[in-house]
Amino acid sequence: MTRTDRRMADALRPYEIHRHFQKYPAGSVLIEMGNTKVICAASIEDRVPFFLRGTGEGWIAAEYSLLPSATETRTQREAVRGKQSGRTQEIERLIGRSLRSVVDTKALGERTIMIDCDVIQADGGTRTASITGAFVALVEACASFYEKGKIFPVKDFLSAISVGVSHEGEPILDLCYEEDSRAIVDMNVVMTGAGRFVEVQGTGEGRPFTHEELGALLALGEKGCRELISYQKDVLGGELVWLVGREG
Amino acid sequence: MTRTDRRMADALRPYEIHRHFQKYPAGSVLIEMGNTKVICAASIEDRVPFFLRGTGEGWIAAEYSLLPSATETRTQREAVRGKQSGRTQEIERLIGRSLRSVVDTKALGERTIMIDCDVIQADGGTRTASITGAFVALVEACASFYEKGKIFPVKDFLSAISVGVSHEGEPILDLCYEEDSRAIVDMNVVMTGAGRFVEVQGTGEGRPFTHEELGALLALGEKGCRELISYQKDVLGGELVWLVGREG
Amino acid sequence: MTRTDRRMADALRPYEIHRHFQKYPAGSVLIEMGNTKVICAASIEDRVPFFLRGTGEGWIAAEYSLLPSATETRTQREAVRGKQSGRTQEIERLIGRSLRSVVDTKALGERTIMIDCDVIQADGGTRTASITGAFVALVEACASFYEKGKIFPVKDFLSAISVGVSHEGEPILDLCYEEDSRAIVDMNVVMTGAGRFVEVQGTGEGRPFTHEELGALLALGEKGCRELISYQKDVLGGELVWLVGREG
Amino acid sequence: MTRTDRRMADALRPYEIHRHFQKYPAGSVLIEMGNTKVICAASIEDRVPFFLRGTGEGWIAAEYSLLPSATETRTQREAVRGKQSGRTQEIERLIGRSLRSVVDTKALGERTIMIDCDVIQADGGTRTASITGAFVALVEACASFYEKGKIFPVKDFLSAISVGVSHEGEPILDLCYEEDSRAIVDMNVVMTGAGRFVEVQGTGEGRPFTHEELGALLALGEKGCRELISYQKDVLGGELVWLVGREG
Amino acid sequence: MTRTDRRMADALRPYEIHRHFQKYPAGSVLIEMGNTKVICAASIEDRVPFFLRGTGEGWIAAEYSLLPSATETRTQREAVRGKQSGRTQEIERLIGRSLRSVVDTKALGERTIMIDCDVIQADGGTRTASITGAFVALVEACASFYEKGKIFPVKDFLSAISVGVSHEGEPILDLCYEEDSRAIVDMNVVMTGAGRFVEVQGTGEGRPFTHEELGALLALGEKGCRELISYQKDVLGGELVWLVGREG
Amino acid sequence: MTRTDRRMADALRPYEIHRHFQKYPAGSVLIEMGNTKVICAASIEDRVPFFLRGTGEGWIAAEYSLLPSATETRTQREAVRGKQSGRTQEIERLIGRSLRSVVDTKALGERTIMIDCDVIQADGGTRTASITGAFVALVEACASFYEKGKIFPVKDFLSAISVGVSHEGEPILDLCYEEDSRAIVDMNVVMTGAGRFVEVQGTGEGRPFTHEELGALLALGEKGCRELISYQKDVLGGELVWLVGREG
Repeated sequence: MTRTDRRMADALRPYEIHRHFQKYPAGSVLIEMGNTKVICAASIEDRVPFFLRGTGEGWIAAEYSLLPSATETRTQREAVRGKQSGRTQEIERLIGRSLRSVVDTKALGERTIMIDCDVIQADGGTRTASITGAFVALVEACASFYEKGKIFPVKDFLSAISVGVSHEGEPILDLCYEEDSRAIVDMNVVMTGAGRFVEVQGTGEGRPFTHEELGALLALGEKGCRELISYQKDVLGGELVWLVGREG
Repeated sequence: MTRTDRRMADALRPYEIHRHFQKYPAGSVLIEMGNTKVICAASIEDRVPFFLRGTGEGWIAAEYSLLPSATETRTQREAVRGKQSGRTQEIERLIGRSLRSVVDTKALGERTIMIDCDVIQADGGTRTASITGAFVALVEACASFYEKGKIFPVKDFLSAISVGVSHEGEPILDLCYEEDSRAIVDMNVVMTGAGRFVEVQGTGEGRPFTHEELGALLALGEKGCRELISYQKDVLGGELVWLVGREG
Repeated sequence: MTRTDRRMADALRPYEIHRHFQKYPAGSVLIEMGNTKVICAASIEDRVPFFLRGTGEGWIAAEYSLLPSATETRTQREAVRGKQSGRTQEIERLIGRSLRSVVDTKALGERTIMIDCDVIQADGGTRTASITGAFVALVEACASFYEKGKIFPVKDFLSAISVGVSHEGEPILDLCYEEDSRAIVDMNVVMTGAGRFVEVQGTGEGRPFTHEELGALLALGEKGCRELISYQKDVLGGELVWLVGREG
Repeated sequence: MTRTDRRMADALRPYEIHRHFQKYPAGSVLIEMGNTKVICAASIEDRVPFFLRGTGEGWIAAEYSLLPSATETRTQREAVRGKQSGRTQEIERLIGRSLRSVVDTKALGERTIMIDCDVIQADGGTRTASITGAFVALVEACASFYEKGKIFPVKDFLSAISVGVSHEGEPILDLCYEEDSRAIVDMNVVMTGAGRFVEVQGTGEGRPFTHEELGALLALGEKGCRELISYQKDVLGGELVWLVGREG
Repeated sequence: MTRTDRRMADALRPYEIHRHFQKYPAGSVLIEMGNTKVICAASIEDRVPFFLRGTGEGWIAAEYSLLPSATETRTQREAVRGKQSGRTQEIERLIGRSLRSVVDTKALGERTIMIDCDVIQADGGTRTASITGAFVALVEACASFYEKGKIFPVKDFLSAISVGVSHEGEPILDLCYEEDSRAIVDMNVVMTGAGRFVEVQGTGEGRPFTHEELGALLALGEKGCRELISYQKDVLGGELVWLVGREG
Repeated sequence: MTRTDRRMADALRPYEIHRHFQKYPAGSVLIEMGNTKVICAASIEDRVPFFLRGTGEGWIAAEYSLLPSATETRTQREAVRGKQSGRTQEIERLIGRSLRSVVDTKALGERTIMIDCDVIQADGGTRTASITGAFVALVEACASFYEKGKIFPVKDFLSAISVGVSHEGEPILDLCYEEDSRAIVDMNVVMTGAGRFVEVQGTGEGRPFTHEELGALLALGEKGCRELISYQKDVLGGELVWLVGREG
């Protein structure tokens, strides 16, 4: 089997996270996973959804969008159609839920961290790249209001990756668009620094899958997530890494 | 540990599928899983989405809705708000994708089977009950146009169930609403008659989950799906069961 | 002249009202008029529209919807189209207005009774069946918060029926869909237990109608409404019937 | 009893129809009924709704709108809210249905006559004034394409008026806004030149109404409609009056 | 060169402003510029947009709409399409901004003057006619709440006109629709009584334009605006003219 | 007077255009004007709006959007609100109209060039930066299908810049956000390589402006546009510069 770009079955694409990408948001990164490029920004708002008002707890919400020019064939703008697609909302729910799973919303205080993932180039894996990049922006944003001696709101690291069974029947890691569109099983794995699952979403696109395949995919996903968390630590640097999981 | 209704951890709620529930659609059932009740209808339309026109292939699409009166507190009607929620669209995509995984769309011909899942009472597990019930309506609908000697479009049985880790840390099967709202891990499993996975969607709501928990949940899910497929066979009766998987 | 189902011109279709059809709403019935089946639920909300805030008065509002699978040819879901049709809103206004005409909104207190009429099978007369069924759900809902010695909010009985001039020129009662689609005059009559009109809506679909025809249609409508009110009393039973019109 | 403007109970308000009010539509009038003023325009479009394509038949559709400045308190623009209210759509359906009842859609040919009723001042009775005015615009529009020797598409005259039972219990004709808002029964009557009913829509706003009241209201409505049809004939003039009902 | 209606290049079309056109708004005029006719109404609302609450300052907002029957070919109603076009919103922003430039919003107090410009016949120049007419309605509305000895909120006169370079290359004033649709440069000029510019919006439709052409167009626009302001003074009459610019 | 960043009154901010910014569109640049950063992409679609079908002519359309994270305070996403603001549509119309003014739509053939301007950081002048950047992307896109010996669709260079009168009364070039929000006159100038105006849009935000001020602003705008066109030529390089204006 040869992959589109001659990678090994268990290899990630070249990746890079650029910090401080934008001037105004409290956290902002550009993440690149191969040709997939996503701007992930974290903005702090001093209000929470109505169901949290007066509770002292905070919230994390995410929005996701593709620039029309991000895809091989231009994608219609959702603002023009007047509504978001089901796919967009499904991705936004996944990103928000994943990030909330490693956040202590009480330590956040009555604030909303608004995560914006804007895809400027899409070549597969945009939702998992969004989670991996948004985590870094989230740590940046929380550091901006953190006061020494308190609990840091981010409790653990978090990354995500796609895995799948290729059209040739082989489990592969970090699918590009061409691989993804031909895969017969497609799975997204979101993991914490402690090696636990936050989300496992597997779909048999071309045919159902067996217990064995599921096991192989989970192992690949774990490998990819670990490597990305290691890279997040490099990118954040000692001081910020030290904050994650601080309890005072 | 005691479950809300004193069930064993690995027991399904009382279930029942009533066939021929409505007069007009080609297939129509009422499925009850405990207090959850869903009308699943399958209507045949002689057209396909634009991307299949002229290909000879068919399509399965699903729509899902809650009656406002189906929930403990009345739910606002989506037609009044003017748009469907992200949750609704995510469920519709799941139902459609799951059913398509056991259908030979070429054998369907250029037809769309439109699946409507209308929840008239919601007590947890509405999306998995929708899949289990819709499968029966789908077989009814396909039988209505099937001609002897041809490939029957439905290739295998299909059922779905929810599993989770209770707030007391125990893996349980077929969660009712109260159990679901307190669960710390929540998972939906969709399986075929051949015992393969079509969808595995697990989410750590309260905390991430381990490999061991994932294994226990998959085993419970498999148990539940097998029992439901056995019941689907009883309900469909010999003649229709015989059709599923026929290749001529 | 022979009617579709060999009924007499002045005969109702077989009818039945099932009480306590759903678990959660304060009132819930399934009404069947021939093949027309409607779930009518009454939910109590502790708030009123802005124009009644602080007045001590309550409100009754109604929503109406067809399941897509309720009609011979599948009907598109209004939540998908993103808006309710004019027909839907016209029916909702009629149901709400009719029920309010027999309710003492002061005795209701600052509550809204939300009426949901969800048609699960449509064979003509869905709006009149909705009114007849919703009245029973309304009485159930009001009984749930009624305190002895106070005025009961429902002042009189209420039922509704369709009448029309058939394509053969004969006045007929309770038209099924096929009769309705061929009728040359179409009229809905809503009446109280005291035999007074709440709504009379007659339309010359195929041709204008005369004074004589109008008289014949009103007489038929009155006959049908009286029979349905008599049945509502049977279904509600002595205790609830006794409450309607109570002034303390 | 004294009416707001000292009229007799059975008197119409001062009325006037100005023809050729706008330059571009095929028919255009300004109708005034007391302070109520409506621009009624009839435009011809060379296409029909999809259900009539290829049948040789035509269609009449109506749209109705209030200028924001037409009412005592400014009304929000429906284009700003992004949708039409249920009331607007109910009125549009009434106007369209009423006009179609006196039109031979085959004689119209495959054309749509689009009726626009734009209320520039609203003081009660805007929907009935719209029908009465739109009828004149419709005749103007049909005359513009009529060819001698053919059937004229408009078969009979048509007018409409509101009647009601005043808050003092007296049946009155042509209610202004203040009378209408206090009326206990409200009815709209649409009649043909032959004295037949096209629509009878009566509603007990404050209390149900009796057979006797219904009879009195119908008689008043008939009186008002006859007077308006007589005036329509004056306004249209001999040549156009002569066309209405022509069969070749 | 001959203009469509044989006017001189620097001549306005016949114009007229009818005051007190509607009964309910605080200010209401009908302005005619040739065949262009616009109802301009000014309504007073005792609230301001959220960003002005509690500041003591007022606001002027404008809405603009075409009756469907106002144009040569019927225009679809924006309330039916469910949204306003970009052109409509651009015009509304222009009208609001222009009027605010001559208003002392502090002297207005916490009130919104809502300007409605409803075009009943459109033959070019509807946005500039709207501004010229709305100014008169605005003065009427402000006079209705003005108390002697205070600053009058309207500080200076305001009018607007279109100018352009005809398809024959000649600068012309006050273009009708036919001229406008063939013009190669199109410009709108809004001026104050003091002869200063409030808006200059020039667009090269067919080709870019030179400094010289720009100069010629500005001179024509100034001539037209001055003539219209002189007419506004005649129409308002001495007492209201005296108020404009009053500082106590 | 000192400007926010100590620039001279007639100086542009530091500017830069990065070509080939995205992989998929036919043309794509990132333009920076100070802290304002816009991705401008030009995609080719093989269809034209309905009014050009079969004419052999092409079209240029533009869409404009701000990333939510582009502004000092996060901006709500238009896809979430369900509609584009008036400001967005006004900018899109301006960009499209400006680019079309230097394009020979016949030479384009029946193609649409879709221009997407996505602002990733906003510090004033986003609409003019969009035009200047989009021009470069447009030339790239047209070069991709240009065949030797034909007319090149882009006829002349095009750039745009903002000018204004500062709150201190001085005319200044290329306003940043802080200067823009305090300016008393605001103007956008779009010019061609031949030094002609395509758009001149001046607004008196704080007070009306005089002839003299208008003249000074036009001169500044011209200076800025010339400098940007000179830079566009550097960026495009000899071969592409040579194409602009080619007639065979």
